[in-house]
Amino acid sequence: MPRLTLRIDFDQNRAIGPGKIKLLELIDNLGSIAAAGRQMGMSYRRAWLLVDSVNHCFRHPVVASQAGGQHGGGASLTELGRAVVRHYRAVESAAQTAAAADIEALSAALAERGPEPADTVGRKTHRLALSLTT
Amino acid sequence: MPRLTLRIDFDQNRAIGPGKIKLLELIDNLGSIAAAGRQMGMSYRRAWLLVDSVNHCFRHPVVASQAGGQHGGGASLTELGRAVVRHYRAVESAAQTAAAADIEALSAALAERGPEPADTVGRKTHRLALSLTT
Repeated sequence: MPRLTLRIDFDQNRAIGPGKIKLLELIDNLGSIAAAGRQMGMSYRRAWLLVDSVNHCFRHPVVASQAGGQHGGGASLTELGRAVVRHYRAVESAAQTAAAADIEALSAALAERGPEPADTVGRKTHRLALSLTT
Repeated sequence: MPRLTLRIDFDQNRAIGPGKIKLLELIDNLGSIAAAGRQMGMSYRRAWLLVDSVNHCFRHPVVASQAGGQHGGGASLTELGRAVVRHYRAVESAAQTAAAADIEALSAALAERGPEPADTVGRKTHRLALSLTT
């Protein structure tokens, strides 16, 4: 079943998309920026910078960090953070429903099988490229 | 005004998104893969590989290339190519309409101004990173 992925650009510097939202959801589940980043295969620094950029995007922070404590600092979503995730997922699901007929039309036009293995495609590509440039 | 960008993943190997669709539209306007690619700042090779991947994605080609002729080969969208662009743009517009309320809710929560200049953010980031790791 085809899957729609969305990015919302608010302006030239501010956007949210599937990566940031997934990270926020994992922080909500795991209570830690480091653990959430690890699960997405990113460094702590990268995860932290993403969180920082979303925090600066909105009027209030979306992630609250608690430093220290017996088990080290944790992180959790603020009320706004949960609302951001909820609205993004609602955009996704409204879009998927509204666009179902056109997505179905595109799916109906797909080739029966997926692309051929890379080496075959490579050879064909080469032949066709030659015929196009002559 | 916020802008929604969509990618449709049909399966693990086949997807269409804003880049491929823009390229198809430019080919339709300019009648040339090379000219369309140039306008998007990509090499002929890259443009050609993108076209090739969309051609293999669907049951029939979306771009038809004519080799030779007095002015060299040209390219145009097939009927299927035009339909693919039309359905993708319809998905986009249906999604934007259906998701308007949630996008508006997200926009209302944006900070008044965009992110601060890079050097200020850098300094803040450093301070906050220190407080998080202690």
